[in-house]
Amino acid sequence: MSEPLVYLNGSFLPAAQAKLNIYDLGIVLGATLTEMTRSFCHRPYRAQEHVQRLYRSLKFAGIQPPISAQEMLEHTLNLVQANTALLRPHEDLGIVHFVTPGENALYAGSAGAAGALSPTVCIHSFPLRFELWRHLFTEGAHVVTPSIRHIPPQCLEPKMKNRSRLHWWLADRQSQQVDPRAISLLLDLEGNVTECAGSNFVIVRGNRITSPSRRNILWGESLETVRLLAAEIGMEFEERDFQPYDVVNADEAWLTTTPYCLAPCTRINGVAIGDGRPGPRHAAMLKAWSALVGMDIEAQILA
Amino acid sequence: MSEPLVYLNGSFLPAAQAKLNIYDLGIVLGATLTEMTRSFCHRPYRAQEHVQRLYRSLKFAGIQPPISAQEMLEHTLNLVQANTALLRPHEDLGIVHFVTPGENALYAGSAGAAGALSPTVCIHSFPLRFELWRHLFTEGAHVVTPSIRHIPPQCLEPKMKNRSRLHWWLADRQSQQVDPRAISLLLDLEGNVTECAGSNFVIVRGNRITSPSRRNILWGESLETVRLLAAEIGMEFEERDFQPYDVVNADEAWLTTTPYCLAPCTRINGVAIGDGRPGPRHAAMLKAWSALVGMDIEAQILA
Amino acid sequence: MSEPLVYLNGSFLPAAQAKLNIYDLGIVLGATLTEMTRSFCHRPYRAQEHVQRLYRSLKFAGIQPPISAQEMLEHTLNLVQANTALLRPHEDLGIVHFVTPGENALYAGSAGAAGALSPTVCIHSFPLRFELWRHLFTEGAHVVTPSIRHIPPQCLEPKMKNRSRLHWWLADRQSQQVDPRAISLLLDLEGNVTECAGSNFVIVRGNRITSPSRRNILWGESLETVRLLAAEIGMEFEERDFQPYDVVNADEAWLTTTPYCLAPCTRINGVAIGDGRPGPRHAAMLKAWSALVGMDIEAQILA
Amino acid sequence: MSEPLVYLNGSFLPAAQAKLNIYDLGIVLGATLTEMTRSFCHRPYRAQEHVQRLYRSLKFAGIQPPISAQEMLEHTLNLVQANTALLRPHEDLGIVHFVTPGENALYAGSAGAAGALSPTVCIHSFPLRFELWRHLFTEGAHVVTPSIRHIPPQCLEPKMKNRSRLHWWLADRQSQQVDPRAISLLLDLEGNVTECAGSNFVIVRGNRITSPSRRNILWGESLETVRLLAAEIGMEFEERDFQPYDVVNADEAWLTTTPYCLAPCTRINGVAIGDGRPGPRHAAMLKAWSALVGMDIEAQILA
Amino acid sequence: MSEPLVYLNGSFLPAAQAKLNIYDLGIVLGATLTEMTRSFCHRPYRAQEHVQRLYRSLKFAGIQPPISAQEMLEHTLNLVQANTALLRPHEDLGIVHFVTPGENALYAGSAGAAGALSPTVCIHSFPLRFELWRHLFTEGAHVVTPSIRHIPPQCLEPKMKNRSRLHWWLADRQSQQVDPRAISLLLDLEGNVTECAGSNFVIVRGNRITSPSRRNILWGESLETVRLLAAEIGMEFEERDFQPYDVVNADEAWLTTTPYCLAPCTRINGVAIGDGRPGPRHAAMLKAWSALVGMDIEAQILA
Amino acid sequence: MSEPLVYLNGSFLPAAQAKLNIYDLGIVLGATLTEMTRSFCHRPYRAQEHVQRLYRSLKFAGIQPPISAQEMLEHTLNLVQANTALLRPHEDLGIVHFVTPGENALYAGSAGAAGALSPTVCIHSFPLRFELWRHLFTEGAHVVTPSIRHIPPQCLEPKMKNRSRLHWWLADRQSQQVDPRAISLLLDLEGNVTECAGSNFVIVRGNRITSPSRRNILWGESLETVRLLAAEIGMEFEERDFQPYDVVNADEAWLTTTPYCLAPCTRINGVAIGDGRPGPRHAAMLKAWSALVGMDIEAQILA
Repeated sequence: MSEPLVYLNGSFLPAAQAKLNIYDLGIVLGATLTEMTRSFCHRPYRAQEHVQRLYRSLKFAGIQPPISAQEMLEHTLNLVQANTALLRPHEDLGIVHFVTPGENALYAGSAGAAGALSPTVCIHSFPLRFELWRHLFTEGAHVVTPSIRHIPPQCLEPKMKNRSRLHWWLADRQSQQVDPRAISLLLDLEGNVTECAGSNFVIVRGNRITSPSRRNILWGESLETVRLLAAEIGMEFEERDFQPYDVVNADEAWLTTTPYCLAPCTRINGVAIGDGRPGPRHAAMLKAWSALVGMDIEAQILA
Repeated sequence: MSEPLVYLNGSFLPAAQAKLNIYDLGIVLGATLTEMTRSFCHRPYRAQEHVQRLYRSLKFAGIQPPISAQEMLEHTLNLVQANTALLRPHEDLGIVHFVTPGENALYAGSAGAAGALSPTVCIHSFPLRFELWRHLFTEGAHVVTPSIRHIPPQCLEPKMKNRSRLHWWLADRQSQQVDPRAISLLLDLEGNVTECAGSNFVIVRGNRITSPSRRNILWGESLETVRLLAAEIGMEFEERDFQPYDVVNADEAWLTTTPYCLAPCTRINGVAIGDGRPGPRHAAMLKAWSALVGMDIEAQILA
Repeated sequence: MSEPLVYLNGSFLPAAQAKLNIYDLGIVLGATLTEMTRSFCHRPYRAQEHVQRLYRSLKFAGIQPPISAQEMLEHTLNLVQANTALLRPHEDLGIVHFVTPGENALYAGSAGAAGALSPTVCIHSFPLRFELWRHLFTEGAHVVTPSIRHIPPQCLEPKMKNRSRLHWWLADRQSQQVDPRAISLLLDLEGNVTECAGSNFVIVRGNRITSPSRRNILWGESLETVRLLAAEIGMEFEERDFQPYDVVNADEAWLTTTPYCLAPCTRINGVAIGDGRPGPRHAAMLKAWSALVGMDIEAQILA
Repeated sequence: MSEPLVYLNGSFLPAAQAKLNIYDLGIVLGATLTEMTRSFCHRPYRAQEHVQRLYRSLKFAGIQPPISAQEMLEHTLNLVQANTALLRPHEDLGIVHFVTPGENALYAGSAGAAGALSPTVCIHSFPLRFELWRHLFTEGAHVVTPSIRHIPPQCLEPKMKNRSRLHWWLADRQSQQVDPRAISLLLDLEGNVTECAGSNFVIVRGNRITSPSRRNILWGESLETVRLLAAEIGMEFEERDFQPYDVVNADEAWLTTTPYCLAPCTRINGVAIGDGRPGPRHAAMLKAWSALVGMDIEAQILA
Repeated sequence: MSEPLVYLNGSFLPAAQAKLNIYDLGIVLGATLTEMTRSFCHRPYRAQEHVQRLYRSLKFAGIQPPISAQEMLEHTLNLVQANTALLRPHEDLGIVHFVTPGENALYAGSAGAAGALSPTVCIHSFPLRFELWRHLFTEGAHVVTPSIRHIPPQCLEPKMKNRSRLHWWLADRQSQQVDPRAISLLLDLEGNVTECAGSNFVIVRGNRITSPSRRNILWGESLETVRLLAAEIGMEFEERDFQPYDVVNADEAWLTTTPYCLAPCTRINGVAIGDGRPGPRHAAMLKAWSALVGMDIEAQILA
Repeated sequence: MSEPLVYLNGSFLPAAQAKLNIYDLGIVLGATLTEMTRSFCHRPYRAQEHVQRLYRSLKFAGIQPPISAQEMLEHTLNLVQANTALLRPHEDLGIVHFVTPGENALYAGSAGAAGALSPTVCIHSFPLRFELWRHLFTEGAHVVTPSIRHIPPQCLEPKMKNRSRLHWWLADRQSQQVDPRAISLLLDLEGNVTECAGSNFVIVRGNRITSPSRRNILWGESLETVRLLAAEIGMEFEERDFQPYDVVNADEAWLTTTPYCLAPCTRINGVAIGDGRPGPRHAAMLKAWSALVGMDIEAQILA
């Protein structure tokens, strides 16, 4: 079979058949909790940690999934195994989990049964398209801070990875006025740097890596990897809110995320960060990461 | 045919076939703009105004829909005609529009084509289940202000009716701890009353109806109807931010929304508003509204 | 004599005679600085630290008490000695200090003497009613975050223990709609967790105890005890602002306060914290605390 | 009898016997709702309106007073009659109402009965000491904006007249560093002018009187009188937030409050308002007010 | 003489000699209050109103200028007369006033005399370069909302026209990344639209002109002209805070300012306002304005 | 030559000739980036660090100076050498750098050349007038928190040392109402202590020195010296936001700044800090600092 499988509500289906009812609360409310994992050399990376975070999100959202975290992990591994068979050797998978509360009973015409929501659970994967990120490694990313601010945790908690993300769509419309390839970096209501839509953002000054405080961001598994590897390359890792001034005057800045691990960020709002080129500490960290996962991450992207 | 039709991306389909791909950005990002309209005696009400507001939302979101507002209106009227044929005489339709930017190219496996999004357009309807709102008219609604705050416009603009609404889901989890039938009434970051998930909220003191300022809310077509009818029943209508104290000490409070037009709200956080019963000004306004639409709104709900 | 004594403005009186004039600024303005201490096995605990904090509050409030901190401590010890004589062996005392600026001259009919306020000083005690807190140790506390926010330090400084606390009364009215035994846990204006009306609140994850930052809270003597004992039971103690998400996903949460020292908190807004039962680290900390004060704290409460 | 009476919990007592137990929640929590009324020529002014506002405050605070508003009004009138008999002819009464939730059961040693609070109700009066305000009419008031901000309504609602007012005490300590007779004028968290501890504050420019919006302030009965009399003297009255710049550049500014009705404010933070002297519009408004209450208000104060 | 004159500290000097000492507090602190006026057909427009506003700014800043407002006006008229003589017939003057507190005594080497500041007063003019604004009238302005927010009035009052404006310089750096001709439109901390660096900004919907509330902006003399002329062209003028959504969905938007009076604004953040072209109400207002000043404003600019 | 030199735009001029055109953007916009350095025993202190910080400010402000940091340093050293020759032996220099974007083309009459700004660069010096600060060392400083708040970094970044500082001028007008020698200590929008106009502010409690977090302040080179010397005198240094309560109840407080290094602060808002006298830790730190720079700092000031 040449079509990838999708896990949807208890079944493994061919991808083309994996569709949601238009009454699903994931569509009606954006009430979707989600995760993004990947494989390295066809082996899933930190899959258990991702599934655990998904269940923390679900608990906070008050959604009781119909399967356990252990079952979710097993289905994930099965899906990866099946879909990896369709990959070419140098390819790897992005793996997506999402859960919604189920269907909107009113729209679906069964309003009386409002109390009995049955959550929607889906796991799917896709081949990572490394060519999309190649320029990030050759030129570095260009982040732009649009005038839109990140949603504060007292309104919608960013630590709960979710898909009520229209503000990111709007932020990108604005950032891409500056540069079609710009990546939005949102400030919070106090003007602190937070995160990008699909990645965490850190700065480097001397031998210190600084991440925004965990209050305002999703603490990514990749960010956790940066934290864990820092000592290995002789660096310190701290968590402290900072502002655009600190980015402009950093030595380096990085984007860290599941699909491409760690990209250099070389410009903010059109201004060069450091000398405007990927820096030596980025190279060192990426090397340590490659050792950790047993493959040359950059080579895969630049291939 | 006994199944309602759904308009989806250029076609009218039987409802059971109307599904979205799991890669649709409506699911992936909650990037969905939407409207909710209804019919009275099988005639759509303010359908043009709803479609216009949808196009204002789309313009703000930077989404170029593949059909014009005029075409959207025509499809709507056609859909209403078709689906009304399935109704019983005393029934009426709720009519939903939604538009998303299209599919996430990365997940769909066609990342290279990232620039060529084709928006998803859907129109569907459902018979209004008046029994769901009957208790609102007999007892009055109970609103609860949870600790979650409404998303401020500088983060996500509430004037653009959209479906990144997970915070409403979370708010309801919290409010329903107080009363399983409670309706969440969100405060903004400054503690002003804003709106409910599916309705606007106004208070009445003496002969004055007060709505929260339009900064923080979706200015509903039903709220506009209240504004327009106020003079007819000898009342003034003002727009001014107020706080829970003003609700507790109002004479009456109302919920106004497309499906049930105007319900009395008789409690907030367990405290009676006025004498805790639906009030005479509510009855007067509902009577004026019934005259406007040519049918007895309350009778339909209580039937 | 079977009636406890109260120290009031220089005299030790029988409790029934200890009354304040209705013109006292403690009543007229809520302008009262206060402390709460207790005894263990009839011995006052950290009485000196409590008195010192009272004098810091008084200095910040610009009130010059008529007696020195040393005299206040001596009166306290004398009062404790006298009132302890009325206790049964297994009982202990709660000890309250409060100071107000004196009487409102205008209301009292001597407005001309406005410059010559004579502060009111009171020390009183009461037998700790452990049965009130028994369910906290058997079931754990249920905290609720009402929509009311804690007063920010730029308006009224929580580090100064005071009795302008009407917002706590209002918060409790709202929280008890969820659960009659609920304890209000207030968020600050940014949505950070702060404190409960009568206790500090900390969370535990792995071997780390986290307290909200001292900006927003009264740093209790019991919280200080938790900080000092942490290393003894192999835990770390950190001070960092956190949000309800972190509470929901903590392993344990605790309330810490003078009267009952350390209670487990097992629910927030109806959601179980950890597995919803008192946890092993709570037991370990309480054991260390019992060793410190030379008595079994939990036994006394459960007796 | 030469001693005024006090109404306390159902009885009329000589003032010297009117005392509160130190366990009263008015003292323990500052949980006191209150009003201040006065007489003109020995006749109470707007007493009914004050009592109604007290009952709105009590409703918001969740306190069920043991007597009805009608009974409260009757007791008030009886008290005024009795205490007026002790006045000299040119004197008038200040009349104070306050209600607390009752006694703190824990401190009082009857913790088990926590659910059965019996509210404390008190009405008392005092001869208005007009000499205290004489300089306000000869020189005008000097208001100072200290660095302390007013408590926002989402923390503690200023529309509910209450006695958790320690922040006003602290503000005065700071303002009196500038001028021992300074009156604190608090800004809100956004820097808008709000109110003084015992009076509302308005500015006048041309023929327009501007009051801060009702969001942030107690809308005093005296302020309401200003609003009602404005047209009579050919002025407009508007409600709009303003900032210190607008005060510095106003033509006049006024303090309005029950005891002295309407005083000119001639300085803010040491800067003259207008030409730094009481203005002609103040004189006109005071004249209209005097006509309304049938006596020369200023003459009484300056006597 | 072919060189324009500058009034500086009591003398009229040739422009080339008008220089400030580097110790002037205008340079050292940006402590400069200022105004911008212009002539129409060589006659100054609203010069008195501008001078009065300057003196309001000076009063708020606590600077006592060495000359009276009347003298300032006279010097202004004299300067205009002298410098107008150098103009070509179709030209007009921009006229600038600025006042600083004087020199920093410490830097100037006379620190002991710190108390005796002598304010710097300057009036200068320049020929209005209409070609700079021609594209605004042919294409319309493009406003961009950068991520930098306007300074709130509790920090630095925008109603006091001043020259501590580095944030505008920074905002322009960011906006010009979108479009080299972009004009920055700053949002306030709550996300409301405020003003542009050199102009006020209003939107038009139907027959209603809406200006941001005066809280956040310098209420320009040109904006006042728009307000005064509105009725003349059958429009209403209101003052109400609005957000970028309202701009995107307005029929028209205008920039109004002294040098070019009223320019259409046709784009915000790259999105067309209305149909993206100067609108008919702009033409009507400009016509009324031209009548008021007795010349064709647009013709002068397009010449 | 008896007149000091000033470096201005490429030349060394006698001070009396160093003037700026009134069209300079430093005057027109307050768009000036700056530094303040000093000499000890005629040797510049941390001059390189100051120049580097200036270049960070310039980078953030988007200003490209016409000379390199190395050249700036060389000119500085040359200027110091020349001007030191004019000093008496016990004197030392204050050294000021400032850079502006150049001239406002519109005002200067060359509007067409708007794109070609040529930055203004100036270096000047002055003899430090130690007698100005003598009372700070004998009595200690008195800081006052005015109602004006510090500008938040999302509006204007304090980490970029700049001269848009009118709010400091206004703050001082207000603080000097309390005490003519008062030094303004600004709070941020959340009520945290930030900095003084010309110095950093730290508190000392036990052996811990606490500085406000670097978010809100210019991290001064003198503050950095305090941080570096702390361990030498057996103290810890931490960075954490604090509030006025913490200042009132600190053991000591210090002002640290380039001209006088480290002064004790003994009062805040009229209240004594600690015992209201310069403390022993201040003496110890000043001694360490004197050792570092090779001269007795206090002796020089008290001489």
